[in-house]
Amino acid sequence: MSKEKGARSRRFEGGLAPDAEDVNASIGFDYRLLPHDVAGSIAHAKMLARQGIIPDDDAKSIESGLREVEGLLADGKLEWDPALEDVHMNVEAHLSNRIGDAGRRLHTGRSRNDQVATDLRLYARAGAARLIELVDKLRAALVTLAEQHVDDFLPGYTHLQRAQPVRLAHHLLAYNEMLWRDRGRLADARKRCGESPLGSGALAATTFKLDRESVAAELGFTGVTHNSLDAVGDRDFAVELIAAIALCQVHLSRLGEEIVLWLSQEFRFATLGQSYCSGSSIMPQKVNPDLAELIRGKAGRTIGSWVTLMTVLKGLPMAYNKDLQESQEPLFDAVETLDGSLRVAIGMIENLEFDGAVTRAAVDSGYLVATEVADYLVSKGLPFRSAHDVAGALVRSAIERGVELGELSLADFQSESELFTEEIFEWLDVARAVDRRDIVGGPAKTRILGEIRRIKEDLSSMRDLP
Amino acid sequence: MSKEKGARSRRFEGGLAPDAEDVNASIGFDYRLLPHDVAGSIAHAKMLARQGIIPDDDAKSIESGLREVEGLLADGKLEWDPALEDVHMNVEAHLSNRIGDAGRRLHTGRSRNDQVATDLRLYARAGAARLIELVDKLRAALVTLAEQHVDDFLPGYTHLQRAQPVRLAHHLLAYNEMLWRDRGRLADARKRCGESPLGSGALAATTFKLDRESVAAELGFTGVTHNSLDAVGDRDFAVELIAAIALCQVHLSRLGEEIVLWLSQEFRFATLGQSYCSGSSIMPQKVNPDLAELIRGKAGRTIGSWVTLMTVLKGLPMAYNKDLQESQEPLFDAVETLDGSLRVAIGMIENLEFDGAVTRAAVDSGYLVATEVADYLVSKGLPFRSAHDVAGALVRSAIERGVELGELSLADFQSESELFTEEIFEWLDVARAVDRRDIVGGPAKTRILGEIRRIKEDLSSMRDLP
Amino acid sequence: MSKEKGARSRRFEGGLAPDAEDVNASIGFDYRLLPHDVAGSIAHAKMLARQGIIPDDDAKSIESGLREVEGLLADGKLEWDPALEDVHMNVEAHLSNRIGDAGRRLHTGRSRNDQVATDLRLYARAGAARLIELVDKLRAALVTLAEQHVDDFLPGYTHLQRAQPVRLAHHLLAYNEMLWRDRGRLADARKRCGESPLGSGALAATTFKLDRESVAAELGFTGVTHNSLDAVGDRDFAVELIAAIALCQVHLSRLGEEIVLWLSQEFRFATLGQSYCSGSSIMPQKVNPDLAELIRGKAGRTIGSWVTLMTVLKGLPMAYNKDLQESQEPLFDAVETLDGSLRVAIGMIENLEFDGAVTRAAVDSGYLVATEVADYLVSKGLPFRSAHDVAGALVRSAIERGVELGELSLADFQSESELFTEEIFEWLDVARAVDRRDIVGGPAKTRILGEIRRIKEDLSSMRDLP
Amino acid sequence: MSKEKGARSRRFEGGLAPDAEDVNASIGFDYRLLPHDVAGSIAHAKMLARQGIIPDDDAKSIESGLREVEGLLADGKLEWDPALEDVHMNVEAHLSNRIGDAGRRLHTGRSRNDQVATDLRLYARAGAARLIELVDKLRAALVTLAEQHVDDFLPGYTHLQRAQPVRLAHHLLAYNEMLWRDRGRLADARKRCGESPLGSGALAATTFKLDRESVAAELGFTGVTHNSLDAVGDRDFAVELIAAIALCQVHLSRLGEEIVLWLSQEFRFATLGQSYCSGSSIMPQKVNPDLAELIRGKAGRTIGSWVTLMTVLKGLPMAYNKDLQESQEPLFDAVETLDGSLRVAIGMIENLEFDGAVTRAAVDSGYLVATEVADYLVSKGLPFRSAHDVAGALVRSAIERGVELGELSLADFQSESELFTEEIFEWLDVARAVDRRDIVGGPAKTRILGEIRRIKEDLSSMRDLP
Repeated sequence: MSKEKGARSRRFEGGLAPDAEDVNASIGFDYRLLPHDVAGSIAHAKMLARQGIIPDDDAKSIESGLREVEGLLADGKLEWDPALEDVHMNVEAHLSNRIGDAGRRLHTGRSRNDQVATDLRLYARAGAARLIELVDKLRAALVTLAEQHVDDFLPGYTHLQRAQPVRLAHHLLAYNEMLWRDRGRLADARKRCGESPLGSGALAATTFKLDRESVAAELGFTGVTHNSLDAVGDRDFAVELIAAIALCQVHLSRLGEEIVLWLSQEFRFATLGQSYCSGSSIMPQKVNPDLAELIRGKAGRTIGSWVTLMTVLKGLPMAYNKDLQESQEPLFDAVETLDGSLRVAIGMIENLEFDGAVTRAAVDSGYLVATEVADYLVSKGLPFRSAHDVAGALVRSAIERGVELGELSLADFQSESELFTEEIFEWLDVARAVDRRDIVGGPAKTRILGEIRRIKEDLSSMRDLP
Repeated sequence: MSKEKGARSRRFEGGLAPDAEDVNASIGFDYRLLPHDVAGSIAHAKMLARQGIIPDDDAKSIESGLREVEGLLADGKLEWDPALEDVHMNVEAHLSNRIGDAGRRLHTGRSRNDQVATDLRLYARAGAARLIELVDKLRAALVTLAEQHVDDFLPGYTHLQRAQPVRLAHHLLAYNEMLWRDRGRLADARKRCGESPLGSGALAATTFKLDRESVAAELGFTGVTHNSLDAVGDRDFAVELIAAIALCQVHLSRLGEEIVLWLSQEFRFATLGQSYCSGSSIMPQKVNPDLAELIRGKAGRTIGSWVTLMTVLKGLPMAYNKDLQESQEPLFDAVETLDGSLRVAIGMIENLEFDGAVTRAAVDSGYLVATEVADYLVSKGLPFRSAHDVAGALVRSAIERGVELGELSLADFQSESELFTEEIFEWLDVARAVDRRDIVGGPAKTRILGEIRRIKEDLSSMRDLP
Repeated sequence: MSKEKGARSRRFEGGLAPDAEDVNASIGFDYRLLPHDVAGSIAHAKMLARQGIIPDDDAKSIESGLREVEGLLADGKLEWDPALEDVHMNVEAHLSNRIGDAGRRLHTGRSRNDQVATDLRLYARAGAARLIELVDKLRAALVTLAEQHVDDFLPGYTHLQRAQPVRLAHHLLAYNEMLWRDRGRLADARKRCGESPLGSGALAATTFKLDRESVAAELGFTGVTHNSLDAVGDRDFAVELIAAIALCQVHLSRLGEEIVLWLSQEFRFATLGQSYCSGSSIMPQKVNPDLAELIRGKAGRTIGSWVTLMTVLKGLPMAYNKDLQESQEPLFDAVETLDGSLRVAIGMIENLEFDGAVTRAAVDSGYLVATEVADYLVSKGLPFRSAHDVAGALVRSAIERGVELGELSLADFQSESELFTEEIFEWLDVARAVDRRDIVGGPAKTRILGEIRRIKEDLSSMRDLP
Repeated sequence: MSKEKGARSRRFEGGLAPDAEDVNASIGFDYRLLPHDVAGSIAHAKMLARQGIIPDDDAKSIESGLREVEGLLADGKLEWDPALEDVHMNVEAHLSNRIGDAGRRLHTGRSRNDQVATDLRLYARAGAARLIELVDKLRAALVTLAEQHVDDFLPGYTHLQRAQPVRLAHHLLAYNEMLWRDRGRLADARKRCGESPLGSGALAATTFKLDRESVAAELGFTGVTHNSLDAVGDRDFAVELIAAIALCQVHLSRLGEEIVLWLSQEFRFATLGQSYCSGSSIMPQKVNPDLAELIRGKAGRTIGSWVTLMTVLKGLPMAYNKDLQESQEPLFDAVETLDGSLRVAIGMIENLEFDGAVTRAAVDSGYLVATEVADYLVSKGLPFRSAHDVAGALVRSAIERGVELGELSLADFQSESELFTEEIFEWLDVARAVDRRDIVGGPAKTRILGEIRRIKEDLSSMRDLP
C-alpha cells in the first residue's frame, strides 16, 4: 500500500481536491482517540491470532509497532498526514511503514466504521468515569463548606425576593442533590455504552470468525452489540453523555450565577480567593469573578453541542453516513468543557468565604417570617388561606410604617385577628422559625446534620462503575 | 377568600394589568395537570387529617369536593379563570366555593411551588410509562415484520451507496436496538423522578408535621426528596425525559427517512397502506408518505423543546423562579409529540409491504460482493490492505466494461492475482456471502432467527417500571 | 366534491387511519391563517376572472362566499373538520358547500403548496409589522423614563461588580440601541419576504396564464418569486423572522434580569407597580416580579422555536415536503411570544420607579472612581499601564484601611506617586467624573441629552415598512 | 509592567490557580484576532497622537512595534503566554518588551472591553465579505451548470414522489434563489456591524478626548456606536452573522442531500468527480459522496453555534460579563465552517455530471403528467376540483393495468369524461407540458433562459459592500 492511498485503493484515480481534503480530514480533532485506537487494535490483533486468522508473530509485531506509535505521540514526534484523513488510517500507515505486511493484516475483519465506533465509546466511557470522579469531588467540597456553616443563616429566595430564612448549609447542600442526579445520569450513560461494536464491520459484520466477546472484555466493555447495521451508525451514547453533561453544566451555571450575586457589592455575602478572580485592563479596583461567569456561560456551549449532534443525526438513513464525523467534536468539547468547569467549581467552593454577619443581617430585613404569622394563625384554627390574607395585611401595614414584623406591637397584631397573643413574638425568632421546619428535606439543624452524615457516608462508600 | 384574590392576598391593592395577565396565566396549558393536582391534593388532605393538622371531616369534604371538580372537567363544564393564574388556584377556588373553610385549609403545609413540582413529576411519570408501552408495541411490530422477511435480501448501505447485502429482517431489527436503548432511557428518566417533592413548601419545607413518605407512597412515588430548596426549583426530571424523547424521535426520523426512500419511484422497495398516505390538492396521481415525513420532521420539535427548557434553566439562582413556568409546555409537547409519532410509526410498520423481488434485484447490481473478493484473498494469505487494493482494481475494471463482478472471467480475476481459483464464484453468491457473516450481530440467517427469538422473549417477559 | 375527500380524490380508497389523522391535521394551529387565506383566495379568484380563466360571476360568488366563511369564524360558528386536514381544505369545503361549482373552480392554477406559502408570508409580514410597532413603543417608553433620570447616577457594572459611575438615563438608553437593531432585523426580515409565491403551483408553476404581479400587488407584496421549486419549499422568511424575534427576546431577557436585580432587597434600586407583580400562595409578604422573570425565561422558548424550524429544514430535498408543516407552530409561537413580551415590557417600564438616593449611594461605595486616579496620572505623563498599577495599589491600601479613595489623604496618594496634587480630589467627584466622559456614546450629561433628542426625532419620523 | 501581571496590577497578590488559568485563557482561539487587533491598535495610537494625548514618536514606535509582532506571527515565531489570558494582553506585553513606555501608553483611553468588541466586529465584517464572495462563486457555478442542462428534464418531486416534470436547469437555479437570500442576509449582517465600538472604554467611555469617527473610518467602519454600555456588551452582530451562516449551511445541507440521492444506485442521475469522493477502508467498490454528506451534517454545527451564543447571552445584566468570552468560538467556527463548505460545494457543482438520459427516463414513468389531464379538463370547462377527481380515477385505473397515462386509449379517457378528445395526447407530451408552464418562476424554456440571463447580469454587476 502506498502511503498516498489510504482507503482509496486502486478504485480511485487521484487524491481529494485540496478544499475537499481540508473539510474531509478529521485528524485535527480525532487524534484524541489515539490511545483508544491503539488499545482497540491490539485487542483485535491478539484475538485474530487466537482465532488463527493471522499468525501469532504478526499480532506481536502489531502490538509492539503500535506501542512505538504511541511512544512517538507521547514524545511529540508523531507526524499526522491529512491526506490519510483520520487517526485510524494514520496509525495504520505508520504501522505498515514500520512492520510491513503484518500491519496490512491488522484491518482483517474490521472496518473503520466499527473501529471508530469502538474508539468513541472507549473515549465516552473513560470521560464519563472521570467526570463522575470530579462530580464526587465537588460534592465533597460542598459538604465540607456546608459543615462550616450549619449555624449561619441566609435568606432563602424565590423570584430573587427574600422568602424564608434557611441555614446556609441547607442552601449549599441543595447543589449536592443536583450533582447526585448528574452522577446518576453520567453513570447510566456510561452503562448504556457498555457494548462493544467491534466486529460489526463496515455495516454487515464480517466473514471472519471473530471472538467479539473476548475483545470486548479486554477493552473493559460489559458485552457486545446485537445488530451490525445499528452498531456502526449508533451515536446514542454520545448524545446521552452530552445531555447528562449539559444538564450538569446548567447546574454549574446556577452556582456560577449565585457566586456572582454573592460577590456583588449589593449582596456582599461572600468573598472569593483572588486565584479565582481576574482584574480589569483599565479599572484598577476591579476583582472580577470571571471563573464563576465562565462556568455559567459554558452551559450554552454544552447545550449547543447536544443540538449539533442531534441535528446531525436527524433523518439519516441506515447505516453509516459521513455526517457522523460531525459527532466527534461535540462529544470531545462537552467532555472537556465539563471537566474544566468542575475543576474550577471545586476550586471556587474551596476558596469561598461567607460573611455570616452579613447573611444574618439579610435575614432580619424583608419580612421573611411572614409565613410564621400565617402558620401561627393556622395553629390557632384559622384556615390557611384566611391566615395568609391576615398576614399579608400585617406585612403591608408594617411596610407602610417602615418597620419589620417583630417591631409591631401586640395590639397591631390583634387589630387584624384576635387569635394573636404574646406567643407570636416567639414564632418570629429566626432560629426557632427555621428549626420548626423539622421535616425530611427541611432546614432544621437536626435535619441538616443528618443530611451531612448521609452524604458523607454515600461519598465514602466504594462504588464501582458499570 | 374572594375569587379575585388568588395568591395576591391583602398584600396587594389590585389585580394584574391585562397584558400581564395574558402572559402570566398558565391555565391555557397547565389544565393538563388537573388529574394529578386532584390526586396530590386528596393525598395531602388525607395525610393532614391523619396527622391531626386538619379535621377528618374537612379531609372528606376536600376529597368529595375535588372529585366533583374533576367530574365537571370530564363533563366539559369546568370554567377556568385566567385571573386565578393556574390550575392550582382555579381548583382551590372552585373547591372553596363548594365547601367553604375546609377548602381554605387544603393549602396548609403546602405551597404552589411544591404542588406544581409534584404535579409535573406525576405527569412525567405517567407520560414515561405510556411512552415505554408504545415503544414496546413498535418493537413488537418490527419483529413481526422482520419475521416475514428473514429470507428477503436488500442492500445494506453506507453513505446511501450500496455496500454489502443483508437480510431485510436484519435491517428492520436494527430499529429494535435503537428503541431498546430509548426504552432504557425513558425508564431511567422515570426512575429518577421517583421522589416526591411534596412537603418542600415554598422553598424551606414547612412548620407542620407532615408525613411526607405516606403521601409519596399513595401517589406512587418511590421516596421523598432530600432538600427543599432544590426540590422546588428542580426540573431535571423534565429535561431528562425530554432528552430521552428527543432521541427516540430522532430514531423515528431515521425510520421516516427510510420509508420515504423506500416508497420513492427510484427505490420502489415497498408500498404503504393508503390509510397512512395523503393526496395532493392538485396532482391527481400523488400518494404521499406524509406521516413518514411528519415523524421525521417532528424530531426538530422535540429538540427545540429540550433547548427551550435548558435555556430557561441556565443561570437561575435558587430556589423557585417564575421562569420555571416555561418548563411546562416543552414537557407536555414532547410527551404528546412522541406519543402521536409512535402510534403512527406502529401503524406504518403494520401497513408496510416490501417487494422482495425489487430489493433482491437491487442487491445484484452495484458490486456489493466486492468485499468478498478481498476476504477471499485474505483467506488465501494476502494481507487485507493489499487484498482490498486488488479488489478495488477488479471493481474498476468491471465498471469500465459495464459488467458485475460475477460476470468477470476467472482469467480476469487471475490477471490481478494468481490466488484466484474457480472457488471465487461461490464466494460471490449473495446468500452465501450473507450467511458467512455468522457472528453475533451479523446478518446470517441463524443469527437473525436467534435475534427474533431473543427480542420476543424480552418483550413477553413482565417488566415492572420503577 | 364529497366532503370526505379533500385532497384525496378517487385516487384513494379510504380515509386516513385515526392515529394518522391526529398527527396529520394542522387545523388545530393553522386556523390562524384564515384571514390571510381568504385574502389570498379572493385576490386569486379576481385575477382568474380578469384573465378569463373563470367567469366573472364565479369570482364574485367566491368573494362573497369567503366573506361569509370569515364571518362565521368571527361569530365563533365555523366548524373545522380534521379529516379535511387544514385551514385551506376546510375553507374550500365550506365554500363549495355554499356556492357549488364556483367554489370548485377556486383552486384553478393554484396548489396548497403555493397557497400555504403565501398565507404564511402574509402572516409573517403582518406579524413583523406589529412587532416593529411594539418595539418602537418600548423604545419610546424607555426614552420617557430616561428623561426623568438624566440627573440620577447609578453604578455601571461589569461582571456585576461596580465599575464606573454612569447616569441612569445612559443605562436605560442602552436598551434603545438593542431595540433599534432588533427593529432593523425585523424590517429586513419583512423586506425579504416581500415576494409573492402564488403562481408557483405545487412545484412547477401552472399551465394557466396567471397574472402573478397583480395578485402580489393586491396582497401588499413588493414582487413575485423567481423559481417555483424554491418558492414552495422556502421557509427562509420564517427562519429569519424567528431569529430576529429570538434576539429581541434575548434583549428582553437582559432587561428582565436587571429588573429582577433592581427589585431585590439587596439592590433596592427600584420598585415596580403591583399590576406587574404576583404574590405567593403561602408567603404573605411576597411581591414577586413574575413578569420580569417570564420575559427572561421566554428567551428560551424563542430560541427553541428557531432550533425546531432549522432542524426541520436540514437535509430536505426539493421541493415541498410534509415536514414543512412543522414550520408553522414555531413561527406562530415566536410571533405571539414576542408580542406578549413586548407589551409586558412596555408596561413594566411605565411602572418602574427608581430610587435615586439608593442608586447614588451605591455609586459612592466600591471604588468606582479608581479609573479616574489612573487617568489623572496619565494626564500628568505617566504611561497608562503604569498608572493602572499605581491606582491598583492605592485601592488595595484603601480597602485594607476600610475607606474609600476619597477618604485617603494627599500624603497617601503621594506615597505611591509624586505626580499627585490636591487636584486629584476634584477628579474623584462623581458628577465631574461622569461628565468628563464627554465623547460620542459617553455618559456625560450633554451627550445624554443629545441622545434623547436624536432618538425622539427618530421615533417621530414617519417610516414606511417595505 | 512585569510580564506576570497583565490586567491584574498590584490590586492582586498572585496569579490564577492553574485550573482557573486553563479555563480562563482565550489565547487558544482568539489568536485569530491578531491582525484585527494590530490594525485597531495602530489606528488608535495614531489618533491618540493626532489628538495630542500621546507623543507622535510613541505612536510611531507603537506602529512599528506592532508590525514586528505581526511579522513574528507570520514567521511562526510568536510565543503566546496563557498567563496573559488573551491576544490583547499578549500583544501589549510583546510590544512593551520591545518599545518600553510607549507600549504602556497604547492602552490610554481604551479598555479590553471595547478593544475586543472592535476586533470581533472587524473579524465579522471580513468574514461576511469573504462568505459573500464565495456565495456568488457558488451561484456562478450553478448558473454555468444550469446553462448546460436547459434541455434536460428531470422529475420535480414533492414528498420525494415524482410530481411534475421540470427542466434540470430550473432545479439547479432554485439554489440560486436560496443563495441570493443568503447573500442578502450576510450583507445585512455586515451592514449592521458597521459601527465602531472603540472609545466605549470598559463600559462608560473615557475621559480622554478621542476622535472616534476618524479611527472608525480608518478601520473601514461606517460610523460609531451610540451608547458605551451597550457597545461593550453587544454581540448581536455575531448572533446575526451566525444565523445567516446557519441558514446558508442548511441550504447546503439540502444540496448535499440531493447530491447523495442523485449519486445513489437507485437514482443514478449524476456522477461526481472522484476528487470529491472517498473510498471505504474495507469495501473496495465504494465511491462515497463524503463531502456532500459533510456539508449536510455541518448544518448541525452551525445551528449549534447559534444556540451556544444565544444561550450565553440570555439573561446577562449590563454591561460586559465574562460569559461573553464564550461568544468567540461559535463565531469563528461558524465562519470557518461555511467557508469550507462553500468551497467544497463549488467544487462539487463543478464536478457533477448529470446523465440526461436517466433523468429523462425518470420523467416518463410515474404519472407525472396527471396534472395535465386535470388542467385539460379545466380548459374544457370542468371545475378544477372535479377535474382533479377524474384525473385521479384515470391514474388509478392506469396503475391497475400497469400502464402510464399516455398508454391509455381515448376510449379509456372518455369512459371517465366526455370532454376528452385526441388533443389530450398532445397535452401529455413532457416538453410541451413543461413549456406550457410559461409564467414568471415557471420551468418553460423561455423562462429558464430569461432567468439565466438575469442572474448572470446580477453576478457581473459590481456591488460594493456596506
